[in-house]
Amino acid sequence: MSNESGSPVPANLIADLAAASRILAAQGVVDGFGHVSLRHPTASDRYLMARSVAPALVTPDDIIEYDLDSNPVNANGRASFIERFIHGEIYKARPDIQSVVHSHSPSVIPFGLVGVPLQAMFHTAAFIAAGVPVFNIREKFGPTDMLVSNREKGVVLASVMGGKNVVLMRAHGSVACGPTLQTAVFRAVYTEVNARIQHWTMALKGGATIAALDPEEGRLADAINQTAAMRAWELWRKGVRDEVNW
Amino acid sequence: MSNESGSPVPANLIADLAAASRILAAQGVVDGFGHVSLRHPTASDRYLMARSVAPALVTPDDIIEYDLDSNPVNANGRASFIERFIHGEIYKARPDIQSVVHSHSPSVIPFGLVGVPLQAMFHTAAFIAAGVPVFNIREKFGPTDMLVSNREKGVVLASVMGGKNVVLMRAHGSVACGPTLQTAVFRAVYTEVNARIQHWTMALKGGATIAALDPEEGRLADAINQTAAMRAWELWRKGVRDEVNW
Amino acid sequence: MSNESGSPVPANLIADLAAASRILAAQGVVDGFGHVSLRHPTASDRYLMARSVAPALVTPDDIIEYDLDSNPVNANGRASFIERFIHGEIYKARPDIQSVVHSHSPSVIPFGLVGVPLQAMFHTAAFIAAGVPVFNIREKFGPTDMLVSNREKGVVLASVMGGKNVVLMRAHGSVACGPTLQTAVFRAVYTEVNARIQHWTMALKGGATIAALDPEEGRLADAINQTAAMRAWELWRKGVRDEVNW
Amino acid sequence: MSNESGSPVPANLIADLAAASRILAAQGVVDGFGHVSLRHPTASDRYLMARSVAPALVTPDDIIEYDLDSNPVNANGRASFIERFIHGEIYKARPDIQSVVHSHSPSVIPFGLVGVPLQAMFHTAAFIAAGVPVFNIREKFGPTDMLVSNREKGVVLASVMGGKNVVLMRAHGSVACGPTLQTAVFRAVYTEVNARIQHWTMALKGGATIAALDPEEGRLADAINQTAAMRAWELWRKGVRDEVNW
Repeated sequence: MSNESGSPVPANLIADLAAASRILAAQGVVDGFGHVSLRHPTASDRYLMARSVAPALVTPDDIIEYDLDSNPVNANGRASFIERFIHGEIYKARPDIQSVVHSHSPSVIPFGLVGVPLQAMFHTAAFIAAGVPVFNIREKFGPTDMLVSNREKGVVLASVMGGKNVVLMRAHGSVACGPTLQTAVFRAVYTEVNARIQHWTMALKGGATIAALDPEEGRLADAINQTAAMRAWELWRKGVRDEVNW
Repeated sequence: MSNESGSPVPANLIADLAAASRILAAQGVVDGFGHVSLRHPTASDRYLMARSVAPALVTPDDIIEYDLDSNPVNANGRASFIERFIHGEIYKARPDIQSVVHSHSPSVIPFGLVGVPLQAMFHTAAFIAAGVPVFNIREKFGPTDMLVSNREKGVVLASVMGGKNVVLMRAHGSVACGPTLQTAVFRAVYTEVNARIQHWTMALKGGATIAALDPEEGRLADAINQTAAMRAWELWRKGVRDEVNW
Repeated sequence: MSNESGSPVPANLIADLAAASRILAAQGVVDGFGHVSLRHPTASDRYLMARSVAPALVTPDDIIEYDLDSNPVNANGRASFIERFIHGEIYKARPDIQSVVHSHSPSVIPFGLVGVPLQAMFHTAAFIAAGVPVFNIREKFGPTDMLVSNREKGVVLASVMGGKNVVLMRAHGSVACGPTLQTAVFRAVYTEVNARIQHWTMALKGGATIAALDPEEGRLADAINQTAAMRAWELWRKGVRDEVNW
Repeated sequence: MSNESGSPVPANLIADLAAASRILAAQGVVDGFGHVSLRHPTASDRYLMARSVAPALVTPDDIIEYDLDSNPVNANGRASFIERFIHGEIYKARPDIQSVVHSHSPSVIPFGLVGVPLQAMFHTAAFIAAGVPVFNIREKFGPTDMLVSNREKGVVLASVMGGKNVVLMRAHGSVACGPTLQTAVFRAVYTEVNARIQHWTMALKGGATIAALDPEEGRLADAINQTAAMRAWELWRKGVRDEVNW
């Protein structure tokens, strides 16, 4: 029995969401795993995300609508991602967020394993300057399979994230969010790029201080990046269009 | 004179095994060297592996059947890999293993050269949390060409591996195994990815402890990964299908 | 109202400038961001640069003419890069410079964040041996969005660069210049390559001295590189021609 | 006036030499710069090498014959590489060598800049276990443009190389040699791969010893690699054939 929101989603938004999956794969942020979602454009208590499939293979037909408890409302037999609760619980906790990306991008993972905070190495990653907390699933849930596989775990993850736009997950990966699909994708990509740059900077610094963006510089640069991000999006979106016909 | 097992192998399994070679090449786990095998699906005292050829070039016609002493039974003039004994001796020692990958993937090699153990940096590489032993061919065999070129060397390698699913080979490479072809390929790929992440984590940590998966987390996450691995396999398998017609 | 220089630019120069954008993208020096300009070949108080678009998408139709105050003179509604003042102010300060590249190439950024100078690791990067200063926008302008978004900031950047051919920008990126388009592109590419090599050299050296090119070796090798650079340019230019028809 | 050796070279050898250039480019050993040569198959006082052009663009028509003083004998107006003396002087000093590769492959350069010797990290790079000397052009020639641009410099380089198969050039690059074209290409590729692995191993080791191949293991493994190298060659050669029709 269908329980859709009743609010149709423009086809171009669905196509952009499917394209976002492929963009994240092309940029090396996701591999066979990871997912991106979009809050429903007119029903704010719903979100849209692909069925459980490798991100590089997502098509518009794979997009499912979920309520904020992460129940699929039009699955029609399509399997859901186990970790969809990451998305639903962040949308509940953060009305300002319209899009969420979960990935295991490799350069980011080390920062969730040792006590070294991510810092903003360049203005493109200005959103990091506000700070990046670490969610350790073990603290509340003991030894697990590491997955955010139910609402309870999603609630704690969202709570650790608080008002930030990126949260690391110990021995697992990270989540990046934004006020638009394009900004969330941009932040997921540049969290990974920034982590790569920070690894080399840490190796180089010896005892020196890193002259990273401070929070005020980060705030100022992030404001302008939300426009600039569209320039990267157009490049990446064209890459998908060159490959498929949507 | 042929001495085949008499048990025909479904063509799709042969194609999957050939595809596995190409997948490992596409993922950077093997280059001109390395091999993957599959225990015969109905004759457990036999295994299947390509003739001696670069993994990216393997086709279904290259697959040869071997007995567990690693004698080819239908070579028909095709050359065998010198190191096939890695496979035969592991199949003998480990009835639970149905597939074996041998590679020289570059990020893994350093862990066989110094006394630093591989640890599971993220849940996708949970299979590493059980521990990864190191086989040093020199200990039993003195100075050699480093190759596991006969049964005796294969027996010692399998014995060092014991009940684990990955074993490193000093100054050579590694072996990853699994209960299915898909799981063995998955483990070979993520042993390399995990090693890359661990290099950066080690560089970052200073004196800190790495909050890697512990054995219990590893056991729980590995159970679920054996299903999840199919999502990666389908992505990778499609990549091969897009290139060849099998 | 148009205020063009009145001096027409040969179509092949415009095509080469557009190609330079795509070359920098193909070489990993720029991603969705970054830009390259060329001083007008016959009106030395003008320069040419693409409208605000991702470098990999630039076509000859995107090239706009600017005066040295970085006012577009034939924009016709096309948006300009915010940071075009980098280019205009360097052309004012440095009559010997005919081309400027601004990028955020990732290996270079760490050298602008800690007090470790870039050094010339090999003869191809000889132009680095003269020294690479660091522009910290914060020193004169306090907390900003990090962008060189007006003439005043461009003037200070050009002044920090002085007579050198590369300048780093703290927590942002770098600028490479040259007496020809080809040399500027070459220097932008090999600044990034050299930075990668220097990271590994620093990691390897322990307390040892790095036997980098000294300034005299740098001067001698740079002279010959300005011819050699054409061999790389021809390779890269052909790559663009294989992709587009200009 | 032509002064050719009079001994025609089989077209397939010329094609293989041109293909070797493209293979080295495809493997990341050379970029716009670098060159590979082959001793004339029947006139041992001659060698064959491409005109001065980016390695990825070499075709059979670009191959020029040189005497061992590195004078072109059939240039017909085609420009020669400035550093051809590397090749001529090694062929004079080492009758056992039939092929020489010069490159600036990036992971190798650091080992020529600090006092850390390359070691053989795995059996594929066994040829390194015999030791890799470093040629510092400054020692005999003072400050220069770093290029081996005449016979005198080539003689000293060959003398530093001695009986080894790889020599590093301070702040420049390296040379790899072999008894066949295929072996020289193989060694150039795996010198770079080995250097990458050694960087990570050095970073990992702390104070530990690296259990690299010792000279005896190196000798034994290198003997078998000269056959194994053909498996890699066939893979790489096919890659070139898939791109061109020779």
